[in-house]
Amino acid sequence: MLHAVIVAGGSGTRFWPASRRDRPKQFLSLAGQATLLQQAHERARLLVDPGRIHVVTSEVQARGVAEQLPDLSERNLIAEPEPRDTAIAMGLAAGLIAARDPDAVLLVTPADHVIGPPEAFAQTVSEAAALAEQRRVIVTFGVAPTHPHTGYGYVQRGAALEHAGERPAWIVERFCEKPDRATAEAYLQAGDTLWNSGLFVWPAAVVLTALRDHLPRTAQAIDRIVAAWGTDRQAAVFAEEYASVEKISIDYGVLERADEVVVVEAGFSWSDVGSWSALSGLDAADEHGNTVRGARLVGVGARDMTVLGDPGHLVAAIGVEGLVIVQTRDATLICPRERAEEVRTLVDELRRAPDLEPYT
Amino acid sequence: MLHAVIVAGGSGTRFWPASRRDRPKQFLSLAGQATLLQQAHERARLLVDPGRIHVVTSEVQARGVAEQLPDLSERNLIAEPEPRDTAIAMGLAAGLIAARDPDAVLLVTPADHVIGPPEAFAQTVSEAAALAEQRRVIVTFGVAPTHPHTGYGYVQRGAALEHAGERPAWIVERFCEKPDRATAEAYLQAGDTLWNSGLFVWPAAVVLTALRDHLPRTAQAIDRIVAAWGTDRQAAVFAEEYASVEKISIDYGVLERADEVVVVEAGFSWSDVGSWSALSGLDAADEHGNTVRGARLVGVGARDMTVLGDPGHLVAAIGVEGLVIVQTRDATLICPRERAEEVRTLVDELRRAPDLEPYT
Repeated sequence: MLHAVIVAGGSGTRFWPASRRDRPKQFLSLAGQATLLQQAHERARLLVDPGRIHVVTSEVQARGVAEQLPDLSERNLIAEPEPRDTAIAMGLAAGLIAARDPDAVLLVTPADHVIGPPEAFAQTVSEAAALAEQRRVIVTFGVAPTHPHTGYGYVQRGAALEHAGERPAWIVERFCEKPDRATAEAYLQAGDTLWNSGLFVWPAAVVLTALRDHLPRTAQAIDRIVAAWGTDRQAAVFAEEYASVEKISIDYGVLERADEVVVVEAGFSWSDVGSWSALSGLDAADEHGNTVRGARLVGVGARDMTVLGDPGHLVAAIGVEGLVIVQTRDATLICPRERAEEVRTLVDELRRAPDLEPYT
Repeated sequence: MLHAVIVAGGSGTRFWPASRRDRPKQFLSLAGQATLLQQAHERARLLVDPGRIHVVTSEVQARGVAEQLPDLSERNLIAEPEPRDTAIAMGLAAGLIAARDPDAVLLVTPADHVIGPPEAFAQTVSEAAALAEQRRVIVTFGVAPTHPHTGYGYVQRGAALEHAGERPAWIVERFCEKPDRATAEAYLQAGDTLWNSGLFVWPAAVVLTALRDHLPRTAQAIDRIVAAWGTDRQAAVFAEEYASVEKISIDYGVLERADEVVVVEAGFSWSDVGSWSALSGLDAADEHGNTVRGARLVGVGARDMTVLGDPGHLVAAIGVEGLVIVQTRDATLICPRERAEEVRTLVDELRRAPDLEPYT
């Protein structure tokens, strides 16, 4: 049976000041009216019943997740005591779900990506789930690159796979880390390399076996937490195992070491919205190239602005170009679009200053 | 006896969004902790008792004035039903004060200028008041120009006057309107022209006589309002006379037409703080040229910024230079310093849009 696992992590740095430690990117309405988390849930609902949708998040974000997703069953909310990267997070979800449904196949999706249209997403995932179940394999989704993006991982495809669905599928030849510009251009030239979307479909049993093979300590931690789940030892075991488990991503720890991984070409549009500068690609710009969310912009010769603020807040911009302006109740950001990546560094600095940390 | 008349007008456009229609510049703390209005009152207190300090303002600002100046006697607050420029405003103050004290000498000062130090101000005003009383003349204060400012009026001095005080004084040769750049440079070169500060000292009887001579309709309106003052006809007469009286400044209507006006060189520093760009001259800049009031600025390569916001609000600026950033609860302004004059035009436009007018 298909289940969905929404991974709602993130530390709230890249979209500061709109995002905060307890309200990272997936809590924001960066595309459409619903938040990215709510949209991820809505997409999952096209594929599975609400009772089979799970969210892995942090303790600090758990309350926000529950508020945003009133349909989410309390027992399907997995709140990690501390972030230990994706291998344990996704593996634990697999372990907990497999304990109830040993034949479970999981759609694993980040909560903070922008994906559409939902129907095309559901169609691709259905085909991938059939393939994963039949072939007992981990399936990733690759996105045909449109430009030499240096902020994404890439996946090189190998032999083509015959399968019942319509989307092209291949055995993964290798995973490639975020490339430099020249390498990214070579990938684009070669035409056999896809953006690694960070979405997966896998049978729970397959990923648990892979964890046992490649990350035995992590697999053991998962077994112990699953055994204690629902007992009065749950919190203690959860915290204890997380305190010592290896901090490693599912990509490094499992996918790159697995015997066979399959990549299905995504039949949907996809963006991980890595910084404020990516936002201008999601919203329609006005005739001056300005994109505005929430707040209202009055510009005098203002062009190519990315503006976000509280509903009802008026941003007046005179004679400025290419700036990101983000207004919130207690903090305002002004930054050229092309330097939006630096927000992350800025927030790291704010967090080291005791008097500024409360703003993060 | 010396009285002080603080003229608290202004429409709140140039310092938007910090200033609004009901809270123009004099209500802001642009220099020091106290508002400009409170500072004007404090300076007047060095010269006269609280009971002899008067404020002329608009009905919409009257409540704010009373809140900011708890020492101000209610009967000394003159709230105009509508703005009709300075001739009637200053003339009416003279008429109302003369009705109680026919020998009154008035210090007339805008509420929204930045002046200091207070002791030097008091000293100059005392000397000017003695001169005005003894010579039965209107005295203006001229500021020695430091650069060819095109936003100020100028006053050309004529024959030097012997008087008991220390400050140089001259008969005014002529008043000069805001000059173009070349003319301003010629004034500076010639060395016989001073900035017209907009502060005056005059015996009430002298200015009332001058009004009768040069603006008889205005003088008549003043007489009628003074006659009705304190009666149940006050509001009706006030509104009726203001609805029809000529809209003219005291400069055009009286000073330029008077037989003799004296200019005393100001022994104090003075700025009319005409726009956000002037603010950077009032505050000490940090090592990056940034001046900050109220809010807190965290800059990454941010230089020559003028930042103003609510106390506790954090403004984060990455890689921007020479911008004015003004944050308020419901509106935020971003504007290059050198285009700060355009804020006025912007606010005029906002006021013409029914849905944006509430922000002004």
